Amino acid sequence: MSRAFPDTALAADIAAGLARVETLFESQLLSRFPAVNDLCKHVERYRGKMLRPTLVIVSGLSFTRDGEALRPEHDIIAATVEMIHMSTLVHDDVLDDAEIRRRGQTVNFLRGNETAVMLGDYLISNAFHLCSRAGDPWLNLRLGEVTNTLCEGELVQLSRRHDLGLDENTYFEIVRRKTAVLVGASCELGTRLAGATAEETAAMRAFGEHLGVAFQIQDDLLDLMGDEATVGKSVGRDLEKGKLTLPMIMHIASTTGAERMAAIRAIEAKDGAALRAALVRSGSLDAARARAVEIVEEAKRGLPETRRAHSRELLLELADRVVSRDS
Amino acid sequence: MSRAFPDTALAADIAAGLARVETLFESQLLSRFPAVNDLCKHVERYRGKMLRPTLVIVSGLSFTRDGEALRPEHDIIAATVEMIHMSTLVHDDVLDDAEIRRRGQTVNFLRGNETAVMLGDYLISNAFHLCSRAGDPWLNLRLGEVTNTLCEGELVQLSRRHDLGLDENTYFEIVRRKTAVLVGASCELGTRLAGATAEETAAMRAFGEHLGVAFQIQDDLLDLMGDEATVGKSVGRDLEKGKLTLPMIMHIASTTGAERMAAIRAIEAKDGAALRAALVRSGSLDAARARAVEIVEEAKRGLPETRRAHSRELLLELADRVVSRDS
Repeated sequence: MSRAFPDTALAADIAAGLARVETLFESQLLSRFPAVNDLCKHVERYRGKMLRPTLVIVSGLSFTRDGEALRPEHDIIAATVEMIHMSTLVHDDVLDDAEIRRRGQTVNFLRGNETAVMLGDYLISNAFHLCSRAGDPWLNLRLGEVTNTLCEGELVQLSRRHDLGLDENTYFEIVRRKTAVLVGASCELGTRLAGATAEETAAMRAFGEHLGVAFQIQDDLLDLMGDEATVGKSVGRDLEKGKLTLPMIMHIASTTGAERMAAIRAIEAKDGAALRAALVRSGSLDAARARAVEIVEEAKRGLPETRRAHSRELLLELADRVVSRDS
Repeated sequence: MSRAFPDTALAADIAAGLARVETLFESQLLSRFPAVNDLCKHVERYRGKMLRPTLVIVSGLSFTRDGEALRPEHDIIAATVEMIHMSTLVHDDVLDDAEIRRRGQTVNFLRGNETAVMLGDYLISNAFHLCSRAGDPWLNLRLGEVTNTLCEGELVQLSRRHDLGLDENTYFEIVRRKTAVLVGASCELGTRLAGATAEETAAMRAFGEHLGVAFQIQDDLLDLMGDEATVGKSVGRDLEKGKLTLPMIMHIASTTGAERMAAIRAIEAKDGAALRAALVRSGSLDAARARAVEIVEEAKRGLPETRRAHSRELLLELADRVVSRDS
């Protein structure tokens, strides 16, 4: 994420931070059992955007002054949030029967659901262990709260599968919990560990939560509209699994009669082409896209002044990429 | 576990401790979402023997003097180890396709694997959050280590399914990791929190680990020999899932020719009746039972002197029950 950015000093600090995070991530998972290491190596292939650790590092650098270094806890938290995220990816692929992730086969597809369940558990357990190595019980408590919230979001979503009555408020409540709180905590903890004020920390958390919500809407749009070759993972999973996403909810709420029924029938028949056509006709697809952009704009408006030169511009750029990405 | 025990003061302290643990367990899991609370209520039905929290409480009481109270951290750790255990039960039932647990239907059977995976995640997340509430990073670090080890044990076991070459050493390594370390940590942490010496704490941890190994052998014997009505959960799962357990391993290692082949064919054909007959004939079943009893005796021999009257006798009795139970 840093390559495109002109400030070489900041870019170099970010790249160095992410390299330390990768080392820490791998050393934390190292087992004396080759069977375990093989699985972890497979999961390391899933690491792509590194959005969450990048946000921890950039948030940290944003509130330190030029030349000041990050704390070791920044690296620990950055690796921890990525490990939590990897664990949710591995279990999500089980929930979604997904076969492809980051252009490779998923653990559940290659090794079965049983191994994928246990590997996800190994990752979440190691995330908590790694976080404990920081020696600050507040960090454990905060991240425990985040993962509780995340699991609640997933459980509520599961309980509402195939529910055509799912409304926008509930959709946003689910998305906030299952995706946004972890992204928000990445910004919050990076900022807090840099010694920022409570106001700055709260503002950065809100920035991250907005990004997380927009990120999930974009993810849902890619699942609905993208093709596997571009997105790099199984698509059409939401429709297959009865998960209503924002354009579908907007369509059902804003149309009537035959137009409304066309989408409902397509959802029930899991007919992606018919659904896409209905959502394009009604403008719901554009409306959902516009909503994601609006949320990113809200995030950017609330972004506090940062202390390090150029870091605010970088955060603004990261925010824009959340909705402009196609994978 | 306390009812049969004559010392009413000790029994009353244990009962009071377990009642506090139940309250803490339930309040930790309480969610604002009814869908989440319904699932947690279902899981609370799984709580039966409460072996792990009982060991935390009894270990704690064993190293306090009469009249001295346990610390609030005892309750937190007792509820945490039970929550970790419940999480593994929920995910184990997914791994084993089990339908029955404590005479009721499993979450995966009632609500599908997806909900069971996510509920297990909610439980493990809450376990770490609850543990963090004690405010002592050492406890988080220690329990993180325990759950890392536990998941490694499960992953190694999964990688050795259907492997007729599994030897006794590897079997014990798997069992130590997937079952014994958590039981050992229950004794260790209860003792340590009571202010015992490092020697007493180490001895209690070893006591618990021996109990855990014997407990798992007994569990495997019940899966092989018990009937669902008595055991109260799905049986025959090990054979169904290609998990070699101690009597099978002993039989394969100690017999030759037709006798050895009879068991191997029964394992491959998943023919429980033929396998049981072969293991009885070769004496491997009795040998495995004897090994469990031997490990309990080793646990009892290593049990340190305790500080509170009658608590040592209670721990000895708990040890015996691990191998005498039929459910």
